[in-house]
Amino acid sequence: MRQPLTRELADLVERGRDRQLRLAVTGLSRAGKTAFLTSLVNQLRHAGLEARLDLLPAAREGRLLGARRVSQPDLAVPRFPYDQAMAALAAEPPHWPAPTRGISELRLSIRYRPTRSGLWRGDTGQLALDLFDYPGEWLLDLPLLGTDYLRWSTQVLAGAGAQRRALMAEWERAAARLDPAAEANEAELAAIAEQYAMALRAAREAGFADLQPGRFLLPGDLAGAPVLQFFPLPGLADGDRERLEALPPESVYATLAARFRHYQQHIVKPFYRDHFRRFDRQIVLVDVLGALNAGPERFEDLARALATLMQSFDYGKRSLLSRLFAPRIDRLAIAATKADHVTPEQHPRLTALLEALLAEPLKDLRYANVPVKALSLASIRATDVHEVVHQGERTPALRGTTLDGESLLLFPGEVPSRLPDADFWARQGFAFTAFRPPPSPHGALPHIRLDAALDWLLGDKLR
Amino acid sequence: MRQPLTRELADLVERGRDRQLRLAVTGLSRAGKTAFLTSLVNQLRHAGLEARLDLLPAAREGRLLGARRVSQPDLAVPRFPYDQAMAALAAEPPHWPAPTRGISELRLSIRYRPTRSGLWRGDTGQLALDLFDYPGEWLLDLPLLGTDYLRWSTQVLAGAGAQRRALMAEWERAAARLDPAAEANEAELAAIAEQYAMALRAAREAGFADLQPGRFLLPGDLAGAPVLQFFPLPGLADGDRERLEALPPESVYATLAARFRHYQQHIVKPFYRDHFRRFDRQIVLVDVLGALNAGPERFEDLARALATLMQSFDYGKRSLLSRLFAPRIDRLAIAATKADHVTPEQHPRLTALLEALLAEPLKDLRYANVPVKALSLASIRATDVHEVVHQGERTPALRGTTLDGESLLLFPGEVPSRLPDADFWARQGFAFTAFRPPPSPHGALPHIRLDAALDWLLGDKLR
Repeated sequence: MRQPLTRELADLVERGRDRQLRLAVTGLSRAGKTAFLTSLVNQLRHAGLEARLDLLPAAREGRLLGARRVSQPDLAVPRFPYDQAMAALAAEPPHWPAPTRGISELRLSIRYRPTRSGLWRGDTGQLALDLFDYPGEWLLDLPLLGTDYLRWSTQVLAGAGAQRRALMAEWERAAARLDPAAEANEAELAAIAEQYAMALRAAREAGFADLQPGRFLLPGDLAGAPVLQFFPLPGLADGDRERLEALPPESVYATLAARFRHYQQHIVKPFYRDHFRRFDRQIVLVDVLGALNAGPERFEDLARALATLMQSFDYGKRSLLSRLFAPRIDRLAIAATKADHVTPEQHPRLTALLEALLAEPLKDLRYANVPVKALSLASIRATDVHEVVHQGERTPALRGTTLDGESLLLFPGEVPSRLPDADFWARQGFAFTAFRPPPSPHGALPHIRLDAALDWLLGDKLR
Repeated sequence: MRQPLTRELADLVERGRDRQLRLAVTGLSRAGKTAFLTSLVNQLRHAGLEARLDLLPAAREGRLLGARRVSQPDLAVPRFPYDQAMAALAAEPPHWPAPTRGISELRLSIRYRPTRSGLWRGDTGQLALDLFDYPGEWLLDLPLLGTDYLRWSTQVLAGAGAQRRALMAEWERAAARLDPAAEANEAELAAIAEQYAMALRAAREAGFADLQPGRFLLPGDLAGAPVLQFFPLPGLADGDRERLEALPPESVYATLAARFRHYQQHIVKPFYRDHFRRFDRQIVLVDVLGALNAGPERFEDLARALATLMQSFDYGKRSLLSRLFAPRIDRLAIAATKADHVTPEQHPRLTALLEALLAEPLKDLRYANVPVKALSLASIRATDVHEVVHQGERTPALRGTTLDGESLLLFPGEVPSRLPDADFWARQGFAFTAFRPPPSPHGALPHIRLDAALDWLLGDKLR
């Protein structure tokens, strides 16, 4: 008599496990996180009605019954501002939602009809989908956990290119005057740290992405706290270690090193410990087109930043992350966003370019056996495709409205399908025009391949 | 041989203990915290030179040698923005520094000559003075720890006067429509919580002070988090407890109650545990004149808010605070700020009024044997006193520059030395004019009795 019951219980537990999924969305600033999450929620809310989710089997087969927003389990995490984002898109004229700062969360309760009716729950299933949105910049801090202040100091300066170095010039002059052995002057360190943060902000404005430490850009409640007031010291070498580590705690070197350690322990680690290690699935958004537009130094910088960022998903046994936090992300998507800014026949090239950009991290991930899918998508499609007859040839073109409100018919040109070479940059082969969102639709938001992303990220939970 | 050494060591330990003092400054918003702390740092930085600190014996006797800013021990606490405050005062025209948000800290290292030269440290002593600044509103949350959601709900609404109630009308209509037993609608609760927060902000704008929960006014990184999205439910009674507590976790009542508990545990408690219980001395600043100016309902509201606030300093054995956190504040000052806005002969009345306003809490504190001193002061003196012959009588008047830049000679009138009665309010006996800061001095900032406050708060550590 007990055997069948035990099996039914096991079945129930198994189903119970499937009833919650924690899906995280990240990307560097301006990658399109807010638009992605807004559209994702919007599509699922309209599922079964107007949403076009043909690439998601549960939707195509009419088994996706709907999704409702319910209370999120993490009370101290800001709620993802879905209503505000929809209000921005519905404004006259529509505008893109304000970017989120820090982490935010939203829980959807999804109802669906399983492919085979369940024994215990009648004919509908329920999935609690916890959606998280957090800055990709936070992942750029992971390598800080594997280094120390002295090594970080030497690496930061060695790694910067000419344009980055130029933005740091003012800070570097001030920092170079510091004597590591002198007693720390609190106000002076604060002023130089502010110059360093300004150089980081200037680099971000100029389109650079490989920026450390990430929290210097979005300090929040820690603005003005000493833990965000350190910087690399120019002119140090690893051979100085013994001498430097013998300096008294009031010295410039010891003060900055102590702040660096506090940042490691009390800023970087808590994010991984309290949030990251609880994510089940992850999508990383990349604004490949924006980087193409910004030129070679920034494009290479993006490649470097992404390589760093992807380390957070490399769960090889020897990885720092696995040892520290035992994360459990079991499926990863990487997506080139804003695909609506090029014509459809360019989309495969866009995906190929993304894969080329991430070639090295993808190799590591495949070696570590993390399932990963690359795709291109537009979370909210802002353009329509028109065929234009041009010198007797039918050429696809985009029609959209620029941010200034001008209606435009555009041939955006070709996306390189491999990493662009000097030749490409010399030709300036790609011009990116930003469009405003489409006029507010009555039903679901228009998109490109958001359903493909959904299928990869949660399709198996809706069977 | 060992006996003398042991005694010397004990002596050293005793002196060691005296070498650090954690002094906290608080007050409700606009009480003058930033001006007080700025002037305090400024006076100590100028000690021995231009500062006039005659009421502080160490300064009067020439034993106060100077003070230097050094690195603060709490790396995750924002630094008190002293330089920015001084820049505001030095601007042309000078303006009051921007108010601080949340907690901030600054450490001074004070050098002084002890009255008797020490055995171990030559002829100078050193005191590390850690200064903290935090919103008095945070202390208004203490009573939340001693109650639960149901009792809080009934008390908030019962306690509000007519003007407060009018500001809450819109929220109250929306909240009254909620069925405590219905399933919580996430977006609806967020919207009603925002109305509640707006009513709190409107009440603060209108001059009210007794505002709970305090973090709703300065949410910082928690903006948009469910933990800041609860509110009292109208129409509940303590007799409903059993029925309400049996409601399922998805119900409106259970959802709001869970958020209230999270606020207690993860917002209110950490401040007391991580900061408050480590303060040695405390000064509470009160803008008595501003409240006098605002009329009877707001003046009574201030009295109520101060009574609540002072509970955090009542260390009677049975007090909630003592049981939870074992705080160690051993000396307290309460100060009526902006004394320069009335003529000097009114200062004793101002102090007497402050003591009348705090009569009940002061009784409790004396019973609990907490040494407390009441005084009136001006952290940064913005007016000069002139004697004016008026109808043959010599009358003191104030000369200052209004916030609009107008130079004014003013008779501010009499401060009542007891709690004002209906008669006083009917006569509208007091008109408060705000002045801009004095032109930037070359030496220390001008003040009134800041040195008396300093003597009470740290004079014994400079002997």
